[in-house]
Amino acid sequence: MFSAQCPSRSILDRITSRWGVLVLAALRGRVLRFSELRRTVEGVSEKMLAQTLQTLEREGFVRRTAYPVVPPRVEYALTPLGEEAAGLVVGFVQWAEQKAPEVLRARADYDARHR
Amino acid sequence: MFSAQCPSRSILDRITSRWGVLVLAALRGRVLRFSELRRTVEGVSEKMLAQTLQTLEREGFVRRTAYPVVPPRVEYALTPLGEEAAGLVVGFVQWAEQKAPEVLRARADYDARHR
Repeated sequence: MFSAQCPSRSILDRITSRWGVLVLAALRGRVLRFSELRRTVEGVSEKMLAQTLQTLEREGFVRRTAYPVVPPRVEYALTPLGEEAAGLVVGFVQWAEQKAPEVLRARADYDARHR
Repeated sequence: MFSAQCPSRSILDRITSRWGVLVLAALRGRVLRFSELRRTVEGVSEKMLAQTLQTLEREGFVRRTAYPVVPPRVEYALTPLGEEAAGLVVGFVQWAEQKAPEVLRARADYDARHR
């Protein structure tokens, strides 16, 4: 994984991107439309969300389904591989939430020492 | 976690940065000097490594120890919190390595469909 050519490094880059993490978690166990995703993942721009979804689709984590109706209806869901990735991501997020107070304390200590 | 103000989101941003992941994994269970870390994490620049270490130290994941000798000797190790984060990260990496063939196949399929 430390090698610049390792394929798992490029996979990690994608999954661990800021918006990648949040989109995987948002889609876990449910199907959402673009606008619903955008409301769920606070702060993501339309462009970044489209780009993130495209990357996750290309990696095989997200399945995009377009229904031939007017107005167009496009839905996003996780593939089985995507659900696995989302499970790992959510475990990580829960850990981060649990440890947040400890980290905030560490930051304050560091800032006091380096002022 | 979907809220822009959530502290766990900023923690995640730090841990899941490309170099953050690799530095945590590199330091797991061992103490390394700056130059050793730089050789281990292929492709990281001196500046990015210094910045990543500083961020991880501020978050309470890395402990930096400077020995008052000539030439200066600085060692980096994980704190108990950092070891926990590294354990999660390594689990993630192992999963990504295991799934790499599946992802590479998905990418090739996607590219063939979108040519």
